[in-house]
Amino acid sequence: MSNGSDLTHRPLEGLTVIDLTRALAGPYATMLLAGLGAKVIKVEEPKGGDLARENSPYVGRDGVIVERRHEDDISISHLTRARGKYGVSLDLKSEAGKAVYFDLVRKADVVVENFTAGTADRLGIGYQACKAVNPRVVFASLSGFGATDRDGKAMDVIIQALSGAMFTSGEPGHPPVRIGIPIADMLAPVFTVIGILAAIEQRHTSGVGQHVDVSMLGALTSFVAIENWSAMAAAGLPARTGLTVQRLSPFGVFECADGYVAVVAVHEPLARGLFAAMGQPELSDDPRFCSRDARVANATELEARINAWSRTLPMVEVLRALEAQGVPVAPVRHPEDALVDPRVVARQETMAVKHPSYRSSIDLRTAGVPIQFSGATTGFDDALPVRIGEHNQAILRDFLGYDEGRIAALAEAGAI
Amino acid sequence: MSNGSDLTHRPLEGLTVIDLTRALAGPYATMLLAGLGAKVIKVEEPKGGDLARENSPYVGRDGVIVERRHEDDISISHLTRARGKYGVSLDLKSEAGKAVYFDLVRKADVVVENFTAGTADRLGIGYQACKAVNPRVVFASLSGFGATDRDGKAMDVIIQALSGAMFTSGEPGHPPVRIGIPIADMLAPVFTVIGILAAIEQRHTSGVGQHVDVSMLGALTSFVAIENWSAMAAAGLPARTGLTVQRLSPFGVFECADGYVAVVAVHEPLARGLFAAMGQPELSDDPRFCSRDARVANATELEARINAWSRTLPMVEVLRALEAQGVPVAPVRHPEDALVDPRVVARQETMAVKHPSYRSSIDLRTAGVPIQFSGATTGFDDALPVRIGEHNQAILRDFLGYDEGRIAALAEAGAI
Repeated sequence: MSNGSDLTHRPLEGLTVIDLTRALAGPYATMLLAGLGAKVIKVEEPKGGDLARENSPYVGRDGVIVERRHEDDISISHLTRARGKYGVSLDLKSEAGKAVYFDLVRKADVVVENFTAGTADRLGIGYQACKAVNPRVVFASLSGFGATDRDGKAMDVIIQALSGAMFTSGEPGHPPVRIGIPIADMLAPVFTVIGILAAIEQRHTSGVGQHVDVSMLGALTSFVAIENWSAMAAAGLPARTGLTVQRLSPFGVFECADGYVAVVAVHEPLARGLFAAMGQPELSDDPRFCSRDARVANATELEARINAWSRTLPMVEVLRALEAQGVPVAPVRHPEDALVDPRVVARQETMAVKHPSYRSSIDLRTAGVPIQFSGATTGFDDALPVRIGEHNQAILRDFLGYDEGRIAALAEAGAI
Repeated sequence: MSNGSDLTHRPLEGLTVIDLTRALAGPYATMLLAGLGAKVIKVEEPKGGDLARENSPYVGRDGVIVERRHEDDISISHLTRARGKYGVSLDLKSEAGKAVYFDLVRKADVVVENFTAGTADRLGIGYQACKAVNPRVVFASLSGFGATDRDGKAMDVIIQALSGAMFTSGEPGHPPVRIGIPIADMLAPVFTVIGILAAIEQRHTSGVGQHVDVSMLGALTSFVAIENWSAMAAAGLPARTGLTVQRLSPFGVFECADGYVAVVAVHEPLARGLFAAMGQPELSDDPRFCSRDARVANATELEARINAWSRTLPMVEVLRALEAQGVPVAPVRHPEDALVDPRVVARQETMAVKHPSYRSSIDLRTAGVPIQFSGATTGFDDALPVRIGEHNQAILRDFLGYDEGRIAALAEAGAI
């Protein structure tokens, strides 16, 4: 029994994950598992490999470039999502490749796939086939609409549209808004990790694994569903309110001379603080703004007054004036600024990635594991499948115990 | 050892969670744990209780109403977030209340809190105090900026602004966009659940619990960081592209006579399908649109042509025409329509909630647990703390084994 406060350990050490995923959603799930300490073995087709290898921009000996120039240029998407994973090449359509796959499954705790729904079963590498060789395996499928649905491929923007998330953003009467982060692609994998860990916990009691099935549409729609849309409609409240929420006024985003700030001054002392910061303390006694109900009733006029004040000032002055009054306020930051917030950097919620061989003048900052543990650490093994099959020797020989002859035969047959 | 395919079991059965959370972020985390089968005991101040109890609208004997009329009207927020939880009242500032709290902690696997950072320690109910009575306990803190930060309260809109998420949405040159779902409030709890389950897994080896600490800013910023913002800037790609992404053109949201649709036709056969659906198959041979590079170079003109076609037609016709060509397309749906998608309803990714005593004519549909397990079920115990302290008897007498005299004394002292 190890010491729980030993910060050289990661919480999921000892778990082995076979990673069949491609593109973004699946690889983000296995990236989180790797960051939490699982040993992740990424399986790629010997020819082609993960689609994300072809995503522009790339980084390499010439720095960051839009089009690949050298064989060892790496897509920054791949550099990000394949962090800490061991890469093996495997032709899952060949019998020899499948035999290697099932040897991996026998030694695994978890398999994760995000093929189009039904593909894994059709290839003979789905849950039933894995369970037959390892009843303890937890097999996770990540798809657009669920593992038994045949609606085909789902892309982030399609799911954003279907989920209602797009409709809720933007100004009333204006077009909907495409959310600029791939929220559907990112949310399903987070729930997939929860499903895997819950199934692993159940396995401590039941002794057996199971199939875990998460849908992109379901994950994002469940988020949208936390607001009570039908009750709001019944109560006459609109589904889309733009930059501000008038029923909480003053609440929302306001304009400055050089940008925008978010302000929350719903409660009495905060509203008084806002009026003082504006240099108009008399508004606290104005019958239109002297109570929460009055402010809500006159929200449009109140918002116009706030904008008339803030629009003339640089953000830094608006922030200073409101902070001095204790009113919650924040700049609307560019992602590049957000990613280097010292609080976020210190907690490794964002982290630098780099090409294994070349230095880049640009800080390539990407997602970390946004969880701090007092008795464990998070982070990524110093492993990255730069080439497809980069770790074939380490996995086939050292992990599976294959001899050199067998590995050579697999290579000759094109199975790896 | 139970049978893993027994669908009467939920994956986290056997785990007990002491829930000190309020408002949205914390209660959503413990709601997920309850849905996954943990026994969740929600602790509320004897006077006042969870802030979400005061959120409008309410449901009760008069149906859905904006202002509370009767004592048994329930905030729909509370009805949603307190599902499947057992409620006890406890004055954590009193010595007698603290003694009960530590009795609960002794029998718990997990404690979750979302007080302002530092508050739990100041009250003497934080991780160190809990660890002293139960070294196996996993103690999770959910805060705006991290458990050791003293920046005070964080609201969803403040975190959206700071994270960069707001900046990435909307049209170039236009204001940023407040995302209409409380994404910062919702994302941190999902990572908190991952942290808790990872710590529980580590406990199987280490024998001890630990502190799990998740920040709203960190969780959302890590999502934003999956895009390579600095590399995109270095490559001359904009951070905000509005309804469409021209470097993938045609890709994005297009206008119809009665709404909007999302369309993805990046690859050659899809672009040809789109042109055919538009009744303009000759565009496939037009040098401006005949290759992916050409379409990207002429994206503005291409998008104008698509909109000129789709704008004249109802959504249903645009969908039919594109589906017939196998082009991925989806309507931008209102949340109320999204929540009743038969696929989502069948998988209980959204579910109905109702007042325990009264029927409502409105389908109050809310978030489910968006994970399917082949060897387990999800869902909520038939428990809801309608009153503060609703389950005091069940928890204090049956779970902790207190006798009636002790419970009466606690009530008399105002500790429960």
